[in-house]
Amino acid sequence: MAGAIPIARYHNPVQSVFGAGALDQLPALLAGQRAALVIFPEARGFGLLGRIEKLLGPQLANVIEDVRPNPDVAELEATWTRFWRDPQAGEVLVAVGGGSVIDTAKALMVGNDSLDFGEMVRGLAGEAEFRPTRFRRLIAVPTTAGTGSEVTPWATVWDRGRQRKYSLHLPQTWPSHAVIDPALMLSLPAPVTLQSGLDALSHALEAIWNVNANPVSDTFAVSAVQETLQVLPALMKDLGNLELRGGMALAALKAGMAFSNTKTALAHSISYEMTLKHGLPHGIACSFPLPFVMERAVGRVPERDAVLARALGVPAREGPALLANFIESLGVKTRFSDYGVPDAEVQRMVREALDGARGRNFIGAA
Amino acid sequence: MAGAIPIARYHNPVQSVFGAGALDQLPALLAGQRAALVIFPEARGFGLLGRIEKLLGPQLANVIEDVRPNPDVAELEATWTRFWRDPQAGEVLVAVGGGSVIDTAKALMVGNDSLDFGEMVRGLAGEAEFRPTRFRRLIAVPTTAGTGSEVTPWATVWDRGRQRKYSLHLPQTWPSHAVIDPALMLSLPAPVTLQSGLDALSHALEAIWNVNANPVSDTFAVSAVQETLQVLPALMKDLGNLELRGGMALAALKAGMAFSNTKTALAHSISYEMTLKHGLPHGIACSFPLPFVMERAVGRVPERDAVLARALGVPAREGPALLANFIESLGVKTRFSDYGVPDAEVQRMVREALDGARGRNFIGAA
Repeated sequence: MAGAIPIARYHNPVQSVFGAGALDQLPALLAGQRAALVIFPEARGFGLLGRIEKLLGPQLANVIEDVRPNPDVAELEATWTRFWRDPQAGEVLVAVGGGSVIDTAKALMVGNDSLDFGEMVRGLAGEAEFRPTRFRRLIAVPTTAGTGSEVTPWATVWDRGRQRKYSLHLPQTWPSHAVIDPALMLSLPAPVTLQSGLDALSHALEAIWNVNANPVSDTFAVSAVQETLQVLPALMKDLGNLELRGGMALAALKAGMAFSNTKTALAHSISYEMTLKHGLPHGIACSFPLPFVMERAVGRVPERDAVLARALGVPAREGPALLANFIESLGVKTRFSDYGVPDAEVQRMVREALDGARGRNFIGAA
Repeated sequence: MAGAIPIARYHNPVQSVFGAGALDQLPALLAGQRAALVIFPEARGFGLLGRIEKLLGPQLANVIEDVRPNPDVAELEATWTRFWRDPQAGEVLVAVGGGSVIDTAKALMVGNDSLDFGEMVRGLAGEAEFRPTRFRRLIAVPTTAGTGSEVTPWATVWDRGRQRKYSLHLPQTWPSHAVIDPALMLSLPAPVTLQSGLDALSHALEAIWNVNANPVSDTFAVSAVQETLQVLPALMKDLGNLELRGGMALAALKAGMAFSNTKTALAHSISYEMTLKHGLPHGIACSFPLPFVMERAVGRVPERDAVLARALGVPAREGPALLANFIESLGVKTRFSDYGVPDAEVQRMVREALDGARGRNFIGAA
């Protein structure tokens, strides 16, 4: 009986602010400090940068707009060094963009006394002790509905030169605030809307078939799956609908609140190789294998099956087919062979993925 | 459309630890600091105090066991003064008990330079500026499933001499940790189990028919209502069932996570007079009026009706009858006349309750 409720923990200190127009709360959230804005390059052309410049006025100390998708240590070095060597760079990081922008800003949250980025990278790579000594707080404003990075303490940083992925994760790298403004998402093109929505679905499901799952993360994850299944197909047909944008933004937020305490699992572990070697966008790489991964989750732990059933609204055994139908109905293929990965390669990839840090979170790993 | 998602906020920094045996995490959670234990007087006879003394060993600096139900300023004065004047009293408050114990410990979290409790009371009463200058952190270990105080930043302190109720609420009065151990609840007698379970139901519903409701508080509140409706009747028939104790403890935790961001509403506003003047236990005083209050909530805001329907599993209009049946089936009468309050008195009481701070949170108040 006691086994049904193992000792578990939940904690998420991020202050969420949500609703159409929530961006306008930024000046108040800065609380008298000055902002270093991290934003995606296209925001200038959209007029979004201009709007924020006007909103913040003299509270805006600095704009960092040369952010690349899937930030790489080679590209981050100059940005990080400039930021930490400039005493006028701003006391609060404000990230406005998708996961890559927020992850870039998180990499800027931590500095060291030597102001040497190489030391940071050796720390991230586990080659030296990772002990940053200087910190900036972060207000994260996602412009996509999916990353969840606005409510997690970690950032993914890539090292393509070494075909590796690092995870930044410190008690100091929780954002202070997540500002969720669905009005900022109205102009998101269809592919990004789809990829980020599927990323959220993957976060929520991976938080359920996870050895770190707990009753609070389950509450968020179940709600996130239910709402994504309902909202995402409607949103794909009506991209300018603010209410649907708001619904998807909240589902993504809840998925983030869930996996912020469980981390991800096998689908994400698989996704990293699919992104590095096969060039798949993250949201596709971590969602097309969901039916495949769920096949391997069902039947392992009856209590996990029950939560999956609650989330999907069908018995857990029917979940993989439901997921495959759902994802394919949105135009995304769900078999490895669809992406040119032969069976033998899949076997090896899954074996290695199960061995990775995220793979070991999977309930089917043991 | 934007109106459907007004700007809302959610924040709950408490670290939750839950599961049978979670109490054993206390030494680690103290993180090298010494504990001032606040506990209910009966805990010594039960052997619970002895168990904690053994668990903490030299980490236990102090035991405060003369805690009364519904703590009153007159009784708190000596405890507070002794605690704050003793430099060896312990750096971390550990509250083990029901709402009264946790609220007592919260009153001990804040001190002032004068070490004068009268100054604190004048501050709580709003007669002087309330500015405590000294703080202790709190680890809250509820032994009932209902209070929610373990995940909120406020405490109710009574002043029976003046027939008043004060609310302590500061950014510093969030517990650092909530330790939810259902094994501690196994010996709770039926009346306390029932009263605290109904208190949790009231927290969850009051968080829904609330002007401060938001999508995250709704997620917790809906889950808490659903689980309380399912678990509480089964638990009342099987008080020694650890799994049911765990289910009710989690429902109460979620109700706490919900109302920690909305505060309570009309039913609680009514309850204070029913407790002060009619002597009803808090859990009954705040739950018997739930059908009455829901009658006044339904039809006010369609979106709130939808959330209530999701929580109760019936159309919102059928909610009051469902609630009355549920509460009466547990042996609790739901009409004011059952408690000897005549109609005219009810009218006045509700009018005054709607005018109180909590009453103004009610969606039917305007």
